Amino acid sequence: MFTILPLKNGLDNVAGFFTQGIHAGFKPNGKEDVAFIRTDEPCDVSAVFTTNVFQAAPIKHFLRYPKGFKTNFILMNAKNANAMTGQKGIEDIDILFDKLGLSYPKIQNPIMSSTGVIGYRLNVEKIALAFPQFDFESKNSHSTASAIMTTDSFKKEICLKVELENGEYFHIAAICKGAGMINPAMATMLCFILTDANISKADMDELLPQAVELSFNAVSVDGDTSTNDTVLLLSSKKSNAYNKEAFTQALNLLTKELSLMLVKDGEGATKVVAFEVSGAKTLEEAQKAAKALSNSLLVKTAIFGEDPNWGRIASTIGASGITCNEETLVIHYDDVLIYNANQRSLDAQTEQKAAAIMQKASYKIHCALGIGDFSFTAYGCDLGHEYVKINADYRT
Amino acid sequence: MFTILPLKNGLDNVAGFFTQGIHAGFKPNGKEDVAFIRTDEPCDVSAVFTTNVFQAAPIKHFLRYPKGFKTNFILMNAKNANAMTGQKGIEDIDILFDKLGLSYPKIQNPIMSSTGVIGYRLNVEKIALAFPQFDFESKNSHSTASAIMTTDSFKKEICLKVELENGEYFHIAAICKGAGMINPAMATMLCFILTDANISKADMDELLPQAVELSFNAVSVDGDTSTNDTVLLLSSKKSNAYNKEAFTQALNLLTKELSLMLVKDGEGATKVVAFEVSGAKTLEEAQKAAKALSNSLLVKTAIFGEDPNWGRIASTIGASGITCNEETLVIHYDDVLIYNANQRSLDAQTEQKAAAIMQKASYKIHCALGIGDFSFTAYGCDLGHEYVKINADYRT
Repeated sequence: MFTILPLKNGLDNVAGFFTQGIHAGFKPNGKEDVAFIRTDEPCDVSAVFTTNVFQAAPIKHFLRYPKGFKTNFILMNAKNANAMTGQKGIEDIDILFDKLGLSYPKIQNPIMSSTGVIGYRLNVEKIALAFPQFDFESKNSHSTASAIMTTDSFKKEICLKVELENGEYFHIAAICKGAGMINPAMATMLCFILTDANISKADMDELLPQAVELSFNAVSVDGDTSTNDTVLLLSSKKSNAYNKEAFTQALNLLTKELSLMLVKDGEGATKVVAFEVSGAKTLEEAQKAAKALSNSLLVKTAIFGEDPNWGRIASTIGASGITCNEETLVIHYDDVLIYNANQRSLDAQTEQKAAAIMQKASYKIHCALGIGDFSFTAYGCDLGHEYVKINADYRT
Repeated sequence: MFTILPLKNGLDNVAGFFTQGIHAGFKPNGKEDVAFIRTDEPCDVSAVFTTNVFQAAPIKHFLRYPKGFKTNFILMNAKNANAMTGQKGIEDIDILFDKLGLSYPKIQNPIMSSTGVIGYRLNVEKIALAFPQFDFESKNSHSTASAIMTTDSFKKEICLKVELENGEYFHIAAICKGAGMINPAMATMLCFILTDANISKADMDELLPQAVELSFNAVSVDGDTSTNDTVLLLSSKKSNAYNKEAFTQALNLLTKELSLMLVKDGEGATKVVAFEVSGAKTLEEAQKAAKALSNSLLVKTAIFGEDPNWGRIASTIGASGITCNEETLVIHYDDVLIYNANQRSLDAQTEQKAAAIMQKASYKIHCALGIGDFSFTAYGCDLGHEYVKINADYRT
């Protein structure tokens, strides 16, 4: 048995980590745009990166380190992705860390993480000029969460305290910035997860990809996969406590909550919809159909328009390449039956009920395929005028 | 040697075919909404249908006929797709043709083709009431092209006359209504191609799918594949002329022109962009990358915003799952070099040139991968406010 409790102030709760965001002069509104996370002793790190072939320079820089390396420093910046910058982009990071070493000589195997526009060299001088502002003993999660924001409309921070049966406890906390399919202007999702649990590197490497699959990968797959997507998990091991089942649950809860925050903050989004596909032949097919729904332009615009046009739902399922049958398909919006083989047209009363559900800020569209035993839920949002406005001229 | 000449008045030029569209009371604006195409003698027909598992009733009705069947009648209707209507949807078509037989008893193996909203039964009575309006000796391509329109803003008709070296000639003509990815509200693309060439059924079956692959499938693949997509080719063989090479070229030209009309008429579209991917490892990879570009929301909104943000182009290529390398990639907008390994950032002058190109109604974005020898061009359009407006409440 164990208990999971939410705590305020995000990363600040996790023993052994220090963090701060500062304004280095990149965001015109004067907000934080450069930040660090550090530990005293180098610690284990697990990572999941973008599947985009054109990985950004910070990711290539990370991948130069030998497998199983330990780090005591992450530097983050917003407004410039340092992507498509070639060898020079990697060298810029080395130069930057050489300069950082002058302010803070203890850095070992430092990691860089960037988000912003693709195709521009990093302004190394400008970032370096801001280093003297850093207070390396600071614990200031809010400022760091703010520093990695781009088109995000709110900070994404979360901390969970896990209490084990024997009275011992550990923390797991994260900050994140929003992208994925629901917020692809930035085309970057960055997430930094810190824990003081006494977790092994092997467990970190096993549990992180699983958590990402169920959370970020359920909201962010749309072919606009960024060059910079990064999820890092670092462990200070400052607590003696650890329990694999408890950690797994807490990690999955944390990443799920963060991914829902991403959808909620989707550019111009007004609604969050859970697309549950059940009764699929395989898990892969359930996933494929659920993601097809959350990615369909026609579905997204129908959700924006609050139009109970279930034909678009059915058509998207049918086109998704999975095994399905219009005789066994059953569609619900929340608890209202919308379609089955015996009720193929909406009567006026059902249409009214469906329309009422679609006016809510969040609801579920459930497609039971009636073929097999597998389920998957993907999360999506609507696509409205605001999305077009934000994305039509992102760089300015 | 042969000559291909465009002619006016679409289907009317093709010997042996009669066609007419009438208003049966479905379109509120009084425009044509039901139409026929017929021949005196039953003729060969080749078909390409949607890959959507939930094929609409008219397609299932067609597929009940034995392979190689001949037909002398196509009936079309707009406003109702007769999709997701089950066995009843197919029976409705049989009932409708029984009623049609009362006005025109010569029908043999009639084909139905529908476009409109999914999930409603056909109004058989209302369509049948309009049959007496049909003039079965009519040759009126315009009215038929009009009858199959839904959100299309202009009629799509084309006729080519192919003159062979020996002085013989044949015609190939088509009408089409617009959908595919660029116009997916309707979620239907219908195309009827008629010819009087003396073509064998075997050649029809060979050449039609090839033509579709190079044309409609280069503009319409976006996961919103309709339940009703249909391309039919019918031959009256009233001309003695035929030459396989000439027919192939004319058919490819015709379908290519029609598919460009579809893109141009994309809902709310203001620009048509050709996405050429060359130097790919395989044809499949070239196709995959080109279609990824034409389908990307980020690319489409950048085109709408006339923002020369080539990072989105590169990122989409990198995420498309193909073999590529940022060191060998070269991007051009028309003839302006935008990116290569030696020119990774846009200087002010190039940015200005790129912006000027993006203000044009049509231009080309060319990505040379520098990996292999295969090329593919996909056509897409921008996504702006008008698209959202049209699709947010399509049914009303």
